[in-house]
Amino acid sequence: MRAVTMTRGELEVCELADPVPEKGEVLVKSIACGICGSDLHATKHTEDFVQTSREAGGAFKLTTFDPVVLGHEFSAEIVEYGPSTEKSVPVGSLVCSVPMLTRRPLEAIGYSAKVPGGFAEYMVLSEALITPVPLGTNAELAALTEPMAVGYHAVNKANLNKGDAALVIGCGPVGLAVIIALKQKGIHSIIAADYSAGRRKLAETLGADYIFDPAVESPYLHKELTRPKGVVIFECVGVPGLIDDIFLKAPQNARIVVVGVCLQMDYCRPLIAINKELSVQYVLGYSIEEFVDCLKYISSGEFNVAPLVTGTTGLSGVAQAFDDLADPESHAKILVTPWR
Amino acid sequence: MRAVTMTRGELEVCELADPVPEKGEVLVKSIACGICGSDLHATKHTEDFVQTSREAGGAFKLTTFDPVVLGHEFSAEIVEYGPSTEKSVPVGSLVCSVPMLTRRPLEAIGYSAKVPGGFAEYMVLSEALITPVPLGTNAELAALTEPMAVGYHAVNKANLNKGDAALVIGCGPVGLAVIIALKQKGIHSIIAADYSAGRRKLAETLGADYIFDPAVESPYLHKELTRPKGVVIFECVGVPGLIDDIFLKAPQNARIVVVGVCLQMDYCRPLIAINKELSVQYVLGYSIEEFVDCLKYISSGEFNVAPLVTGTTGLSGVAQAFDDLADPESHAKILVTPWR
Repeated sequence: MRAVTMTRGELEVCELADPVPEKGEVLVKSIACGICGSDLHATKHTEDFVQTSREAGGAFKLTTFDPVVLGHEFSAEIVEYGPSTEKSVPVGSLVCSVPMLTRRPLEAIGYSAKVPGGFAEYMVLSEALITPVPLGTNAELAALTEPMAVGYHAVNKANLNKGDAALVIGCGPVGLAVIIALKQKGIHSIIAADYSAGRRKLAETLGADYIFDPAVESPYLHKELTRPKGVVIFECVGVPGLIDDIFLKAPQNARIVVVGVCLQMDYCRPLIAINKELSVQYVLGYSIEEFVDCLKYISSGEFNVAPLVTGTTGLSGVAQAFDDLADPESHAKILVTPWR
Repeated sequence: MRAVTMTRGELEVCELADPVPEKGEVLVKSIACGICGSDLHATKHTEDFVQTSREAGGAFKLTTFDPVVLGHEFSAEIVEYGPSTEKSVPVGSLVCSVPMLTRRPLEAIGYSAKVPGGFAEYMVLSEALITPVPLGTNAELAALTEPMAVGYHAVNKANLNKGDAALVIGCGPVGLAVIIALKQKGIHSIIAADYSAGRRKLAETLGADYIFDPAVESPYLHKELTRPKGVVIFECVGVPGLIDDIFLKAPQNARIVVVGVCLQMDYCRPLIAINKELSVQYVLGYSIEEFVDCLKYISSGEFNVAPLVTGTTGLSGVAQAFDDLADPESHAKILVTPWR
């Protein structure tokens, strides 16, 4: 099959053997697969990504030397069931799955040298983890289930109370997913900050009540953040120094939810957080229930995800798409469609 | 009056004018006043302390040039009421108070050049904030109300559930106060770690169920911390790098409560905290209700605080006591008793 491999930061289209489903697995076509910020990280900072992931005992089993087919935000079509399967969903059906295989040990789809991710024509999925995409749902939008689940989980972990104000720092795909999830939870006010005009516009389209360009005006001065009520700040950027900046500007007792993935060493001044009694909740991923909820909300239109998609490409355009995503003005989410 | 002033890190005994109570204030004798880790910080790292405190908008109004009389953990005896007071507590009574004057702006007792702290013969207190010490309570133990309130507040902020295990990193006065408060809340297991044998012994005396010397064995390997239940880690040291070390060793979903006050820039690897979905709650101080609770628990014996006191000194011995506190083997809390 045709696939895009990443080897020490280099992306190239090549021919690989089709993957073979093991017991309880199913062979699928990758229909649409989003490029995630973590894919960009893993490609640009492979060494850091691998080393820190290992130290943390995380699920990512990347190495710095084996080629890997990235892609973990996918919708897929069932081609053929492997051995010991129940064939619960008909061949030809569109499905989603959390990017994991129930092998022992677990295999992370899209971050493993052993199985391909979605930037390839074929993949294998665990039958136990597939969720049928409801009929009538756009196959490309269904591929947004995974990134939406990240935002939805972060919002769930924030334990928001009615009346809490939310500040979303960074309106890349993660920040935008958080805004969509906040909107669906009925949160007002949603205040969003990004240096890019294009992304601020997207934030507004997706449900932000107020948008700020931090280069012009500090979002922390907004009246909703200076009232003595609950304030939750979603850090959706993931660069060193940003949490320290939040410490400095956040109001007393603010809760910070860290959704952005900073791979480098970070720094901060604890005394500032101490003086304000701030709290920081680091979050990762989502539960299977949250993932299934997100597919349902995308299908029903409760999550208005279509504006997130700013481009699509075939496999031959993946390397270019990785470069293009460096420009926040032009892109939020690019979907890879291996069969088009 | 005789007082110990701190000027740019130098402690000296000198004669100062007696403080004069303003409206709503009362003149008191300082009976016993503990030396706090923050006093050591403020003396050794005055510049850092002042600068970071200002950036954070904190209550400490220290400058780097004015002499200040430190001491904010005190019990005191009422000498004379100032103007516009209700004289609700008889002259001669023993009282405690949160170290604050209700002036506008608020004045932090023990961290202000305008009013003396407890390392002096006399102080002024706000009548509205004084709490009588119940009869029969040892005046020196009553001075431990303030540091106990710090530990008690940290434990309250942790929102512990029955069955949660607590790990206390660092058994200085703050860590020991946390252990006393955990014990009073009925928490098992309390696991305590400190490099000093003397402090480990104190931790055990005060209620730790298990003690660890991290130089010999990692406390994180204790079976209570590897079970899939709630784990709360109290960071009671306050040095750079410690939170990162906790990130690395903590179990999945652990909640970290930062009670130690790190004045320097700190560093950590967010990806490690992200992979484990850790949370960090920074805490400071306590409420007036918590302070009053602590005095009650000290008085009733529910808080077994006597072992915390490892020494007392007059004003002339304060500088030496600051030096002595550098040795964790010999000291936990030294009380200054200006009248003895």
